[in-house]
Amino acid sequence: MDSYLGNTVMKLALKEDPEEHRIALFILLLCACIVIGHLLEKNRWINESVTAIFIGLFTGTLILVTTKGRNSHILVFSEDLFFIYVLPPIIFNAGFQVKKKQFFRNFLMIMLFGAVGTVISFFIISLGSLHLFKKFDIGFLDMGDYFALGAILSATDSVCTLQVLNQDETPLLYSLVFGEGVVNDATSIVLFKAFQRFNLSDVTSSNAIQLLGNFFYLFFTSTLLGVIVGLSSAYIIKKLYFGRHSTDREVALMILMPYLSYMLAELCYLSGILTMFFCGIVMSHYTWHNVTESSRVTTKHTFATFSFVSEIFIFLYVGMDALDIEKWKVVGQRPWTSAGVSLILLGLVLVARAAFVFPLSFISNLTRKSQTDKVGFKQQVTIWWAGLMRGAVSVALAYNQVFGLLTQPIVRQMLSLHDTQLDGIMLADSPLKSLNDPLIPGVDDSESDVGGTNVPRPTSLRMLLTTPTRSVHYYWRMFDDRYMRPVFGGRGFVPFIPGSPTERYIH
Amino acid sequence: MDSYLGNTVMKLALKEDPEEHRIALFILLLCACIVIGHLLEKNRWINESVTAIFIGLFTGTLILVTTKGRNSHILVFSEDLFFIYVLPPIIFNAGFQVKKKQFFRNFLMIMLFGAVGTVISFFIISLGSLHLFKKFDIGFLDMGDYFALGAILSATDSVCTLQVLNQDETPLLYSLVFGEGVVNDATSIVLFKAFQRFNLSDVTSSNAIQLLGNFFYLFFTSTLLGVIVGLSSAYIIKKLYFGRHSTDREVALMILMPYLSYMLAELCYLSGILTMFFCGIVMSHYTWHNVTESSRVTTKHTFATFSFVSEIFIFLYVGMDALDIEKWKVVGQRPWTSAGVSLILLGLVLVARAAFVFPLSFISNLTRKSQTDKVGFKQQVTIWWAGLMRGAVSVALAYNQVFGLLTQPIVRQMLSLHDTQLDGIMLADSPLKSLNDPLIPGVDDSESDVGGTNVPRPTSLRMLLTTPTRSVHYYWRMFDDRYMRPVFGGRGFVPFIPGSPTERYIH
Repeated sequence: MDSYLGNTVMKLALKEDPEEHRIALFILLLCACIVIGHLLEKNRWINESVTAIFIGLFTGTLILVTTKGRNSHILVFSEDLFFIYVLPPIIFNAGFQVKKKQFFRNFLMIMLFGAVGTVISFFIISLGSLHLFKKFDIGFLDMGDYFALGAILSATDSVCTLQVLNQDETPLLYSLVFGEGVVNDATSIVLFKAFQRFNLSDVTSSNAIQLLGNFFYLFFTSTLLGVIVGLSSAYIIKKLYFGRHSTDREVALMILMPYLSYMLAELCYLSGILTMFFCGIVMSHYTWHNVTESSRVTTKHTFATFSFVSEIFIFLYVGMDALDIEKWKVVGQRPWTSAGVSLILLGLVLVARAAFVFPLSFISNLTRKSQTDKVGFKQQVTIWWAGLMRGAVSVALAYNQVFGLLTQPIVRQMLSLHDTQLDGIMLADSPLKSLNDPLIPGVDDSESDVGGTNVPRPTSLRMLLTTPTRSVHYYWRMFDDRYMRPVFGGRGFVPFIPGSPTERYIH
Repeated sequence: MDSYLGNTVMKLALKEDPEEHRIALFILLLCACIVIGHLLEKNRWINESVTAIFIGLFTGTLILVTTKGRNSHILVFSEDLFFIYVLPPIIFNAGFQVKKKQFFRNFLMIMLFGAVGTVISFFIISLGSLHLFKKFDIGFLDMGDYFALGAILSATDSVCTLQVLNQDETPLLYSLVFGEGVVNDATSIVLFKAFQRFNLSDVTSSNAIQLLGNFFYLFFTSTLLGVIVGLSSAYIIKKLYFGRHSTDREVALMILMPYLSYMLAELCYLSGILTMFFCGIVMSHYTWHNVTESSRVTTKHTFATFSFVSEIFIFLYVGMDALDIEKWKVVGQRPWTSAGVSLILLGLVLVARAAFVFPLSFISNLTRKSQTDKVGFKQQVTIWWAGLMRGAVSVALAYNQVFGLLTQPIVRQMLSLHDTQLDGIMLADSPLKSLNDPLIPGVDDSESDVGGTNVPRPTSLRMLLTTPTRSVHYYWRMFDDRYMRPVFGGRGFVPFIPGSPTERYIH
């Protein structure tokens, strides 16, 4: 009892903990980034992210100087912190706010890029680095490490996409590049697991099929978990809270349940990112419509704010991490080797990405009849370039900053040069066009919910052959209205009761 | 580079971390508590807290059984977690949602209870335990430990007050007991620091004055820090965002800045609880009125939800902690000693609390002329009993559960038995009465903002002598309207702009 009491007293009175220093400093910096970023909002080259990187660099330098170069690790957070606290809100908010119609219309192309494209990229980077590192005699890695390198560098960073591409300005590019980033999280986990104990002599066709099976298994189970948790939240809130809503409880459940899905996915060795993303989609389609008006406003802005703060946090971290002494020591010992490795990897990433973006876009364009649905060459270049961004925290911190800074102006320039062409493509799926089309009677679909609005009604078999994706939307919509929404709620399926969710929130 | 890459890959692919297990389990349990608590809402004995304790106990038993009694610590979180993540939202929300008029009207009595009362209680418990432990020959503590015991057991737990007393049902009791809990956080820090290296022979009058000075210094600086951070947030949001509001940025600042104040207070060895509480009061008075309608809804419900989840978390923790094997082992070795210690401390706490609640209430009643403002005997008993709850996490987990469970029925019973008397007191400061009084022209004050609404206007000196607290309110209100609100914003002081905060949110 003695020591227990003593400890408690010490904690109560003298909270002397370096963690508190770090947290206080980080919060102060986050506030500074938000305020300064807002002040500089009108400048096209500077936003919160760039501000955060510079403030991070500045603070890192300051601390390095004041501690006389001894202490840079006071500001290095663990990767755990990133995967447990910082990443989940960003991915969930992306799923929650994604334009679902756009996303599912491009679903096949996203899968093509995220799965097939990542595999192509993986082999080019792995085998290319194996070959080149040996040729220039800078090979110091095991066989498995080359494959790990390939898996990591083939994964696009979805967080950076969110920062650089704008869903409203370039919806097609956004959904393709961001969707690819979500899907290839699953691909790289599969590839990494498959090639952990891999010999080149083992390559057989049965192995390849097993690999494919693993990917689909992982993709399917991760998605399913997200959908199940999302539907559970909709069902619980619809059944329990009907007629006596409690905003605080609803908001608490809507924050806790997606987080639970992410944690469960990670515990089951699934792709937490995929799970969280689909949980967000399902919750925005069902759960969000079942709660009170206050809960809707609160969750919408709370998720956006969490995501916003997490993104700034990452960029602050990137800025500070650039000054990590340990890493520079490694580089300093063998400067030419490091430079060579960096150049080779940069070249391989560029080549590997080009090797699948252009051919796969070509194949994808063959299946699309309408000219407006096709992905033009300029857009292919943007996809190639925007996807070059690599994990903000995982590996190529330096690359990331360079690519990130350059992508935004490139996208803007392409937008201004080819206004007409891009506008045509963007409007193909925008609400503006939908509003001019006859709506399915009785159901308002002006928002970005799943389901087609401009569906002609020929015989169903002919329809399936001529406009495959649209008819999928049509059947989904019928299924959704007849079976899903009556059970799980959703827009238009919550009867009116005073004080209940159906009082629409006017933005 | 090798090991860095290797680590990253391991993290990406095989996130095998006990922390994730704990988090996932805790989130699952939190969801269960919310759902079950809501289902059992109509039962007067069971709410989320009680549900949480039982679910905690049940889960603890389950884990104890499945791990065959080896592993109970898989579920024991650190005290850091409590002080850094769980406590701040509860205290801030309390300040943010507190009825400010009620709180400041009873400010002197709260200070009397929180400062003088805690000192009386501290001496009775410290010296009483010193004396009794020696008498029954179970003394195994140092001199300093007795004083630590006195400091800890004299501090009321404000979190439990929030759970058990209802601000709307019993506003006077709530503000007295909760206010005392906030203020005595500062008192116990001062007492603990003062008596760390204390000898009984050192007692002089100059020491006592120094002690008093320390308390006022700590109280004043902690409050000031909270007020400064709160006003800064109001000023930043008013100046920066005026005319071009961004809900996400506003919400982010309104979440980050109070948290910053708490962390700064802890770093400066001040009372984080006091700082956070006053920051909440200032932010609800100024900042909240400067933001967009969406931000207001979002922050109000986000703070309430965080506080709600944190409270459930604490009760879950308490339920699980009851099964902590290490503690039971200590008890098991000397069962009679432990029982004796518990009984003596329980008795001392009861006596010490009675020793200041009744005399101080008597003194306080002498200064109040109006019968409705006086604190009746029944209410004194409730204050005495409700304040017996001790820190949910810090020490007396067992006591806490017992007292917490018994207090709610006692309060309810007293309410139903003495409806008329209590109603009179409750209505003395309720909005219902305010509405019947003439309002100060031009300023709507039907909410619980600081400032008197029913102020007569005699000559100011006579007024100051006859109704001291009311005239303080009056002068504060004049000062607030003339100097504070024009600078920091607040209700009625943000000019109308379409889409800006002045469009009132209709609940």
